[in-house]
Amino acid sequence: MTITLFVATSLDGYIAGPDDDLSWLFTDTDYGFDDFFANVDTLIMGRGTYEVVKSFGKWPYADKANVVITRRSDLVTDTPGTTVFNGELPELVQQLQEDGAEEVWLVGGGELVKSMLTGGLIDRITVSLHPVLLGNGIRLFPDGFPRTALTLEDSAQYDSGLVQLNYHVK
Amino acid sequence: MTITLFVATSLDGYIAGPDDDLSWLFTDTDYGFDDFFANVDTLIMGRGTYEVVKSFGKWPYADKANVVITRRSDLVTDTPGTTVFNGELPELVQQLQEDGAEEVWLVGGGELVKSMLTGGLIDRITVSLHPVLLGNGIRLFPDGFPRTALTLEDSAQYDSGLVQLNYHVK
Repeated sequence: MTITLFVATSLDGYIAGPDDDLSWLFTDTDYGFDDFFANVDTLIMGRGTYEVVKSFGKWPYADKANVVITRRSDLVTDTPGTTVFNGELPELVQQLQEDGAEEVWLVGGGELVKSMLTGGLIDRITVSLHPVLLGNGIRLFPDGFPRTALTLEDSAQYDSGLVQLNYHVK
Repeated sequence: MTITLFVATSLDGYIAGPDDDLSWLFTDTDYGFDDFFANVDTLIMGRGTYEVVKSFGKWPYADKANVVITRRSDLVTDTPGTTVFNGELPELVQQLQEDGAEEVWLVGGGELVKSMLTGGLIDRITVSLHPVLLGNGIRLFPDGFPRTALTLEDSAQYDSGLVQLNYHVK
């Protein structure tokens, strides 16, 4: 099983600007997302990310297993294929393996990423680095997790100015 | 006159780890720094950066004009070619132009970068992105400056896993 953080950020490391602003995201092409997503069987995301995606309208990940991770035991999800998990993350990973998950997409957000990194539970990181400084917003990597060595697998530069970086977590 | 932020960061955007840790910086090659530095006539840096560089021993920028920007009026510098500036940044930029500065290296750190971005005073940004997550430390881009559009000029991937990104500030 492989857990991949596949995410778009600004050069200053935000996954969303103020008020969950995502208007800066390039949509002229999919930047490899469709190929990546086709192989994914399971999505895991924090509650904040879940609420943001849900606010866009029709749930876009209906044909995959969706797991929302939250400390709140009262979260009710009404989107297709969605379960809530409020236990410890290593237990979740073990459970996903037992369920036969193979390609897991860690959607976000920052707090979940931090907890997953702290637990050494992320295998790969793909960052689509947008040519913009947002100056404020929600950080992909909040302060406060252990130093983590990465291995660059490859990088790709697009005409739009986006640079995509693929790393293995050591 | 061109003001360039030329800097190394971790993937999570730190210019130094906890306790000013710089042990993660690659030193196997200069990653274009020597060519860049050869053309620089003037360096500007915040007080924190000044103190860190000074702590390394012999002042490495003795043959350039060095300007330390601080709000403290009592800072005394004892390094070669170093002056202190505690006025407004647009005045500094005007003064540098009048003094005939052409290639200015904005060395750091985060608070000065933020003030320079807020003033729209940076022309180019070169980031040497190291394949590591530090998890804590001093951020290159602290929260709290206006959204700033960038144009990617080029990027280069090195065998070490470092990716260097060159941007114009729009």
